[in-house]
Amino acid sequence: MVGAGSEFDRGVAVREQSPGEYAADLGAGWTIGNGVNGGYLLAVLGNAGADLAAKAGHPDPFAVSAHYLTPTRPGPALVRARVVRSGRSLSTVQATLFQQHDDEEVPRITALATYGDLGTLSDEVHTTAAPPVLPPRDECFSSADAGGASDAFHPPLIDRFELRSDPASAGWAIGKPSGRGLLQGWFRLSDDRDLDPLALLFAVDALPPVTFDLGLPGWAPTVELTVHVRARPAPGWVQLRHRTANLAGGYLEEDCEVWDSTGRLVAQSRQLARVPRG
Amino acid sequence: MVGAGSEFDRGVAVREQSPGEYAADLGAGWTIGNGVNGGYLLAVLGNAGADLAAKAGHPDPFAVSAHYLTPTRPGPALVRARVVRSGRSLSTVQATLFQQHDDEEVPRITALATYGDLGTLSDEVHTTAAPPVLPPRDECFSSADAGGASDAFHPPLIDRFELRSDPASAGWAIGKPSGRGLLQGWFRLSDDRDLDPLALLFAVDALPPVTFDLGLPGWAPTVELTVHVRARPAPGWVQLRHRTANLAGGYLEEDCEVWDSTGRLVAQSRQLARVPRG
Repeated sequence: MVGAGSEFDRGVAVREQSPGEYAADLGAGWTIGNGVNGGYLLAVLGNAGADLAAKAGHPDPFAVSAHYLTPTRPGPALVRARVVRSGRSLSTVQATLFQQHDDEEVPRITALATYGDLGTLSDEVHTTAAPPVLPPRDECFSSADAGGASDAFHPPLIDRFELRSDPASAGWAIGKPSGRGLLQGWFRLSDDRDLDPLALLFAVDALPPVTFDLGLPGWAPTVELTVHVRARPAPGWVQLRHRTANLAGGYLEEDCEVWDSTGRLVAQSRQLARVPRG
Repeated sequence: MVGAGSEFDRGVAVREQSPGEYAADLGAGWTIGNGVNGGYLLAVLGNAGADLAAKAGHPDPFAVSAHYLTPTRPGPALVRARVVRSGRSLSTVQATLFQQHDDEEVPRITALATYGDLGTLSDEVHTTAAPPVLPPRDECFSSADAGGASDAFHPPLIDRFELRSDPASAGWAIGKPSGRGLLQGWFRLSDDRDLDPLALLFAVDALPPVTFDLGLPGWAPTVELTVHVRARPAPGWVQLRHRTANLAGGYLEEDCEVWDSTGRLVAQSRQLARVPRG
């Protein structure tokens, strides 16, 4: 299932209230701790930008770069978006999400997004990256069970998707992180809405911070997050792999790959995040 | 040597002609084919943004995301920059570079850049990434010799730096690409100006496209390029490693790492580029 009616589509819906100004209502169901999930926000921004780019025949996000400015709260938000340049095969949009705070308009997240039409790309695939090696889903840890194991870690966000974590990267949940800086598992949206390019913007940032696997509890605020969407995912579960290799100076990079049910690498992301203060 | 007087500093110099408007003169020495090098442009934009962010105590680029819109030509350019948000430890700038073309102002490249102060970061380093394994410089191929070997590939850009390529990844120059999608070597600016955070923005995109090592000649135009600068590099040569693992649908990602002379991973970049048409 794709489209209106799914909780993802309702969650990222925007309404153009004047040219280039889109109203959004950020759902409390997409929060974790006091904040709104960064991937969800990227999808909201990406949705507003897609409305503009689609008019030029470029409906799909190819590359979205977001810089996170201030913590976003659930509730009303305004996205201001404009086309910076529209060419033959690509359109680039600049978009910023604002919220009212103390009678002042505060920017929460600002992004550049280049859109195209994934349907026009050639079928050649020469990917040399190797997909994750995951046990079957019924041998993985289900996020649906996580509430029972630890009520402290059951934010609303976790009900928006189903995650089946590779046991080898899920040790953090029982106090035994692997120390490799690797989190991976099977993923789909909770109401079984199939992933599309917009939903991939959410998928790359839906999991806990990869620092959990390094024994560093606490949140890792995103400074910058860029996603490349490389193909429309096939229906069904996707595989997610999050890794970090450069934790230094109080910051880390976090890379995510999304592999679809046909074994194609459909999205790659990298973010710069702050190391949790513990 | 760092600072005014080096050809890099002259090349990326900007002059504020009104608040938030910076004039630049893009040197013909930074071109390749008909275009201006993308990393050089990133450094010009980064320099204008740094002027704004430094006023808030945030002189160093931490994360710079650029979307490339139209081919840039050598000559006059105008950068319009503004601070989107300035916080306690980070400031985020939005900047776009324009050129006049047929009496019209055309955007060439637009960027979001988050600045901080690398000098304030903690000394902890837990990097698990492994540096390149390179032969000593005197056993590598020198870019200074490349002109003799192939006059066809001696664009002005190549004189802006010294590159000592790992012979195992330099086979493309004699028609024998390795097919691994890997280019690596030693790098420094040609007048021995030491690299600083601004120069790292250039370094990550100075080499030929990694597609050369896949036997795909021709240029690979950048769609999007994000750089994370993680530390001020120590003086001396750096090691660059470029890799791609996902060439598909006419696009590829290209990752670059920069390792300084102390063995620290000081910058990471990823770009989305078009596969050369051959």
